[in-house]
Amino acid sequence: MRTIDWVDGAVELIDQTLLPERVEVLRLRTVADLVAAVRRLAVRGAPALGVAGALGVALAAYTEPGPEAVRAAAESLRRARPTAVNLAWGVDQAAALLPEGPDAVLRRALAIRDDDVEACLSMGEYGADLLAGLTGTRPLTVMTVCNTGGLAAVERGTALGVAQTLHERGLLAEALALETRPLLQGARLTAWELARMGAPHRLVVDSAGPFLLARGHADAVLIGADRIAADGDTANKVGSYALALGARRAGVPFVVVAPETTIDMATPTGAGIEIEDRDAEEVVTLRGHRLAPEGTGALNPAFDVTPHDLITAIVTDRRVIRLDKGESLASVPPGPRRAGPSERV
Amino acid sequence: MRTIDWVDGAVELIDQTLLPERVEVLRLRTVADLVAAVRRLAVRGAPALGVAGALGVALAAYTEPGPEAVRAAAESLRRARPTAVNLAWGVDQAAALLPEGPDAVLRRALAIRDDDVEACLSMGEYGADLLAGLTGTRPLTVMTVCNTGGLAAVERGTALGVAQTLHERGLLAEALALETRPLLQGARLTAWELARMGAPHRLVVDSAGPFLLARGHADAVLIGADRIAADGDTANKVGSYALALGARRAGVPFVVVAPETTIDMATPTGAGIEIEDRDAEEVVTLRGHRLAPEGTGALNPAFDVTPHDLITAIVTDRRVIRLDKGESLASVPPGPRRAGPSERV
Repeated sequence: MRTIDWVDGAVELIDQTLLPERVEVLRLRTVADLVAAVRRLAVRGAPALGVAGALGVALAAYTEPGPEAVRAAAESLRRARPTAVNLAWGVDQAAALLPEGPDAVLRRALAIRDDDVEACLSMGEYGADLLAGLTGTRPLTVMTVCNTGGLAAVERGTALGVAQTLHERGLLAEALALETRPLLQGARLTAWELARMGAPHRLVVDSAGPFLLARGHADAVLIGADRIAADGDTANKVGSYALALGARRAGVPFVVVAPETTIDMATPTGAGIEIEDRDAEEVVTLRGHRLAPEGTGALNPAFDVTPHDLITAIVTDRRVIRLDKGESLASVPPGPRRAGPSERV
Repeated sequence: MRTIDWVDGAVELIDQTLLPERVEVLRLRTVADLVAAVRRLAVRGAPALGVAGALGVALAAYTEPGPEAVRAAAESLRRARPTAVNLAWGVDQAAALLPEGPDAVLRRALAIRDDDVEACLSMGEYGADLLAGLTGTRPLTVMTVCNTGGLAAVERGTALGVAQTLHERGLLAEALALETRPLLQGARLTAWELARMGAPHRLVVDSAGPFLLARGHADAVLIGADRIAADGDTANKVGSYALALGARRAGVPFVVVAPETTIDMATPTGAGIEIEDRDAEEVVTLRGHRLAPEGTGALNPAFDVTPHDLITAIVTDRRVIRLDKGESLASVPPGPRRAGPSERV
């Protein structure tokens, strides 16, 4: 099952707000509906948002009444999540084909979808090989935050995709998934995906991650990325920075896994990355239950920025950048995609 | 209202599992009931557990059928929470009076209760003065984790007691309270106490704490302690260590506030502190709702250990130990208690 796809003239996606209780596919026939789904995180994850952006422009091209309305719809989608560079990228890629008509836009969007599947397979290969080089070829315990699996992409995903490749190679001892407050993507989505792939795993409250690293409970930390600045500073789900601090103190590799499209060379450093402040209600209530006294406010940054000096390596679908060895995004050129295990059969 | 007290031959305490929805006082007539209350965290917080330990031995002396039964009851209470040194301390203090009869035990227990009230006032004075020295006399934003307020003691508390003293002096700009998963003591208890004292405050998910420090959102971190080893290594609610890493990187003071009774000179370093692993159910369910797929396990350390090199200062009811200046628990002798604002009126 794909997380997001184009089916008979509409965008279909798994409503991730209902997981793990229910697997329900939303059928979205207008860009307004898609924007609403993006905002309430029915679809989330950087690669999946890229595909959503591209498919959304195709949807606009077919359904909006004229060129102005199409452009306005595309712009509203582009702005639905300010931190995620992939969403804007997907919108822009598809929108560039608008002069050639809706069919051309759709072809570009479907190519982006297919490309994402290939990119995730390639990241799995590059990432699993990197870890073997860093820690030796033995079963590893990896720690991760948020959901960076198939649900964050079209299939397989980024950081969790590397864990899946390790598992397929017989080299995953256990995955420790941070629950990822406030929306619990780790507890709801990552645990669900790990169970489906038959990988040993346990949940951990977010604040325990750094301490468990200090006590030697994990061999590596794998995270995804929502935006990577030119210097390697990485915006990702809030909690990533704390894990990076813990990994550094513990001497554990801290690896960012993201497709090339997540890299934003136009933003020199992490200081230039806009951090989405989300609603306090996400923190003070959970599924309609109040967690704090009535009237309690919250400060709710959805992402944080991990400075590049705390990152061991960045793994993309086309290269591995060893920041710990002084390499940089500028110094390591993109190379070839690698075929995943399914292509090798 | 006191968090815990001795009323007409029984221990009475606020059932903290029901806050903030309901303020309900439990009346416990047997040690078995008290042990159950301690285990399910109806009463928690290092100083309150010390008083609970002492009052529990008095309860045993009055209600158990003979000396053997009294000793067994005291021992069961002593072991109800392995990380909290104050609980064992309170039990031992009261148990030393057992040969002199129940009334003598009770007098000792009540003296421990009264002493706790004085100690918290003194910590507030020492702590608020320390912060003025570290950051200058201006309104401060302080970050804290778990609940270290009046609900963790008999009145006022430790780290949150310092925030209260700052507030009474007009020097608290805002308190940022970490929600403290899995049991949400920050969201449920600390937010409730801050609202009652009229102090400006907001909640923060635990994993955002280190990042908000990096972005300059707080002037100091104040935490309590469940056990302090001879070298200053401090066991406290899980998440404290991540905040300490964040505070160090941000150059923000990280201050431990705890009564002298929390110091355990018999344990040389943090490596010797037993960390309570609590049930996975606390992580995967919340108020009866499943947060993760059926069958998901969890690794649930209730505490972590912050190494002394990350701690700016330890504030007790009798001294301030500036670890950042090379001072140690051995080098700074305890001094006098300081009177709080109510005594000065």
